[in-house]
Parts: sequence; structure tokens; C-alpha cells
Amino acid sequence: MGRYLAITGGVGGAKLALGLAHVLAPEEVLFVVNTGDDFEHLGLTICPDLDTLTYTLADLSNKELGWGRADESWNFLGTLSALGGEVWFRLGDRDLALHIQRTQRLKQGATLSEVTAETGTHLGILHRFVPMSDSPVRTVVETTDGPLAFQHYFVRDRCAPRVTGFRFAGIEHARPAPAILEWLRDCDGVIICPSNPFVSVDPVLAVPGMREALLKLPVVAVSPIVGGTAIKGPTAKMMAELKVPATAAQVASHYGDLLDGFILDQADAALHGCLGLPTVVTQSVMLTLQDRIDLARVALRFLDDLKSR
Amino acid sequence: MGRYLAITGGVGGAKLALGLAHVLAPEEVLFVVNTGDDFEHLGLTICPDLDTLTYTLADLSNKELGWGRADESWNFLGTLSALGGEVWFRLGDRDLALHIQRTQRLKQGATLSEVTAETGTHLGILHRFVPMSDSPVRTVVETTDGPLAFQHYFVRDRCAPRVTGFRFAGIEHARPAPAILEWLRDCDGVIICPSNPFVSVDPVLAVPGMREALLKLPVVAVSPIVGGTAIKGPTAKMMAELKVPATAAQVASHYGDLLDGFILDQADAALHGCLGLPTVVTQSVMLTLQDRIDLARVALRFLDDLKSR
Repeated sequence: MGRYLAITGGVGGAKLALGLAHVLAPEEVLFVVNTGDDFEHLGLTICPDLDTLTYTLADLSNKELGWGRADESWNFLGTLSALGGEVWFRLGDRDLALHIQRTQRLKQGATLSEVTAETGTHLGILHRFVPMSDSPVRTVVETTDGPLAFQHYFVRDRCAPRVTGFRFAGIEHARPAPAILEWLRDCDGVIICPSNPFVSVDPVLAVPGMREALLKLPVVAVSPIVGGTAIKGPTAKMMAELKVPATAAQVASHYGDLLDGFILDQADAALHGCLGLPTVVTQSVMLTLQDRIDLARVALRFLDDLKSR
Repeated sequence: MGRYLAITGGVGGAKLALGLAHVLAPEEVLFVVNTGDDFEHLGLTICPDLDTLTYTLADLSNKELGWGRADESWNFLGTLSALGGEVWFRLGDRDLALHIQRTQRLKQGATLSEVTAETGTHLGILHRFVPMSDSPVRTVVETTDGPLAFQHYFVRDRCAPRVTGFRFAGIEHARPAPAILEWLRDCDGVIICPSNPFVSVDPVLAVPGMREALLKLPVVAVSPIVGGTAIKGPTAKMMAELKVPATAAQVASHYGDLLDGFILDQADAALHGCLGLPTVVTQSVMLTLQDRIDLARVALRFLDDLKSR
């Protein structure tokens, strides 16, 4: 029995989160989710990373598409297109219900933490997951074409523009969601899931007070870069454009003194013992549910080893 | 070749409007639609009577349900229900697209007339239809249970509360939509479709300047009451609760000096010649498309007869 905190972004992070949810009881883990990806679209507040984790934990994720909700239909989007509406962000009929309900509850004065908890309850999710903050933070991708709202960069423009940096608009007014601070008062360790360091994990770490609180705890991260490429998403492309090596070593160095340990994939076994901090080597590419559970166990054992050193 | 204006509310009115659209060329008729039924729901501006006419003229109305859009699916609503959302107003997946697109365009500063025209263009509707006003007007049903927003009375509470009167909130600031005033400068006659006089037609007539403008023109109405009952909706129930006879004669008297002629169903043939204004007797119950076309022809011929007297 322990109390862990896991930081997660989109699809890759949610895979390990699901593994952790299989290994840990609901009272043993708090998932903290990036909200820098959130945006306002068609009058709705959309929280892609929260939604990915929600659908993953509720066993409602769309395995064919790799994003969105299972058993989805697209009649809304098809009709919106016929009416001349904006359809670059693909909203399924079922998925839409979550965005509309969330937007309504926020308008009624509920916090994002409260709405997220309500959603979890309605979908039968026993584990707790919270947004990094109840204040809106919006990741801006600086590119050679100018600044782009994250979803415009990521979905509309398919990560084509060349990245020069990132900004988290609103971060100065953000505070960690209340459950996070409470949880950190009695926490055995932190797992940074294999999400994009720049746009999934950095927004979480940039919330004022977050990094300072985490520095007091054992923290391990799972590399999202394996053998020089990203398992999913634009991490490696971003690193190339930022003129840093697209390597697991670079990711560890990016997190700096926050990390007490780093989990490498077998493909990067050569880095073991070379990063200036404890590492373990394992199969970090998660194809099956068992892979997710195995990686969760490795990460938890690693944290416990680090504590007893 | 003439220029006519037709006032319409929900399903009954839209039937005659469809008949008129088959008989008249797009440049010969302007449909003016009640917006007192409009309401804000789930963050969306919903205009039920505009939508009914839209779907009717686009041949997209749901003939099985008698309301809403054809070829509809309900995955949004089912999911919203599972999330604890408000589902008393049944929004289909395709129908939802119209509400979201309209709400977006209004937020962007478009007028309701502009959005309505855009919708018509996208759906290939050649005839022109406009809201009675671009300013929001909201019908409030006064009942023995207190005041109710129209859709709360009509849909949520299924017309159960006892009606004591009506109020059109915002009517004092409303002006007829620009196209109406322009059209009325050169108009041969007005047809009031068989819609509820209290909550479909009265809001239109109550827009400041509307009744005065219509008084200068030949106006005929089709009775929505046939043989003492309403073909559809709560008209007869309302009349009973307002303690007036639920008769076609009472409807004619309700419109008063606005009317130059009144169209009775065969079931009310006994009233012919007894109402103190010209009447014609015809089959006003519209079951088939041909019924709609036939009634449209009767109404237009009646208007032309009244002009040549």
C-alpha cells in the first residue's frame, strides 16, 4: 500500500495510467492531467488529454482510431460540414456529449476538478484523476509561421509548422488543482508517464508551486523517445526543430533535477548507467494491456527501490 | 405572379408553407417565422419553429416522429443522459449541428436573419424564410403553477400546467426582421398559416410595427381549430383553460380586424357566412403533399378574390 501521483498527457501517458490503475487501488494513485491542450471550439470547452484518460479508464477509448470514444458515430460532424461549419477537429456524436455537459457545468460555476469528478462517477471510474489546474492554461506553439494555439498546430495543421518554442498562456494565474496539493502532503512517489515533455508534461510542471512540491519526492519518468523516435506524436520532430538530439538522454536532461530515476526502453539499453542518474531498462512500448501493467509494476518497483537507497 | 407573405409557427404552419412553396416561385413568397418558441438550452440557441420550417422546406423533416430531422440518430442524447445531463429536450445528432452552427454564428455577430439565410443556402432551400425579428423574444406561458418558459411548458411539462395567459419577453425591443419591412412595401396579401394563435402567431403580430403594417394588406387565416379540436398541439386545451370556446369562430374573433377572410374546414361548414367576414370552406386538414398544395391554392385564390371585391 502506497500513495503515488502520476502525471499524464495524451494517448501514450494514458496507456501507462491504465496499467497503474490495474496495479494500484483507487486510494493509491492520483492521476494529474495536462490541460494545456484544452481549447474553446464551437462554443465548447474541450479538454483532449482529460478526455483521453477518461475514455481509457472507463474502457471507452476508440481502439480503431487511436483517439476519441468507442462505438462512435459521426452524424453531427457530417451535418455540420453540410451547414458550412468548422470540422477540422473531429467531434463524434457521443464524444460531443462530454464537451457539452462539461461546458454547461463550467458555465454553472463548477470547477474543472468538480466536472471531471462528476464525469468519472457517471462513467463508473473508481480511480481519481484531476486536471493540473482549475484555471485555464493554454499552450501556444511558437513556430516559424507565428504562434499557434496548440490544437491548431496539432490537429488543424497536423504538426507541419516548424516549432521554435512554447508558451503556456495563463500559467502565471494557475494554481495546482486542490486535490493535488492535498495528495502531495502524503505521497510516496511520482511517475511521469511517457508523454510529450514539451507540451504534455511541461505545462503540468510549470503550474506555479508544482515543481517545488514534486522536488521533495522521488520522481521517475518513462522515456517517450525510444531508439531516437517517438512512439506517437510529434516529440521527435519537435526536438529536431528545437535543435536538440531526439534521444531518451535528452528527455532525461530536459527534466533535470526533478528526476530521481529514468526508465529506458530496451532499444536504449546502451544508455543505462550513462545518464548520471539511476535508470532501469525494460520494454516500455505498450502494445497490450499486459505491457501496460508490466510497465506500471516496473515503475512502482523502481520508485520503491529509490526510496530504500 | 404575386408577392405574398405567410406567417407560420410549428408543424401545422409548416405544412401549408410547404404547399405554398410548391405553388409559388421563390420570388413570390416570404415566410415569416415565430421565434417566441426559441430558447437557450445546453448553451445553444434553439429555434424550434425556424428549424421545423427549415427541415420541411429542405425535405429533411422526420416523418416518423412528426418533429426533428430525418435520418436522425440519438447517440449524443444517450451519452448525455449517461453523463447526468439535461435530456428532456430531445436533440438528435444531426439536428444538433444546426443549433451549434447557429449559436456560433450568432456569437460571431451574425443576425438570426443572416444565419437563417445561410442555413437555407447550405440546405438548398430556394424560398426565403426569415425570423419575425432579429431581437430575441421569448414566450412566457403564465400558468396556475407560475410563469414557464415556453419550451418548459410545451416539451418538459408536456402542456400539463393550466394556462392563464401569455407574455412575450423582449417584444418591446423587437423590430420586424429587415426583409419583412422591405417585402411589405410591395405585397399582395398575407396568409396566416394554421398555427397556434396564442403562441405561434401572436408573437409575430406583437412585434412592434408588424400588425400596423399587415392591417394595410388583405389578410386571410386558416383555422387551426377544426370541429372544436386542434389538429395538433395544445390550442384547444389552452382555449378551454382561457375560458373561451375552442372553436374556429373564436380564432377568427381572436385575430379581429386584422383579418379580411377566414378559411374553415368542411367540418365547420356551418360557420360559413356567420362570422361577419368572408369565409371559404375547404378541406384544411393536410395529410398528403397534395392536400398542402390544394390548401395553398385555395388560400391564394381567396386573397385574389378579396382584392378584386
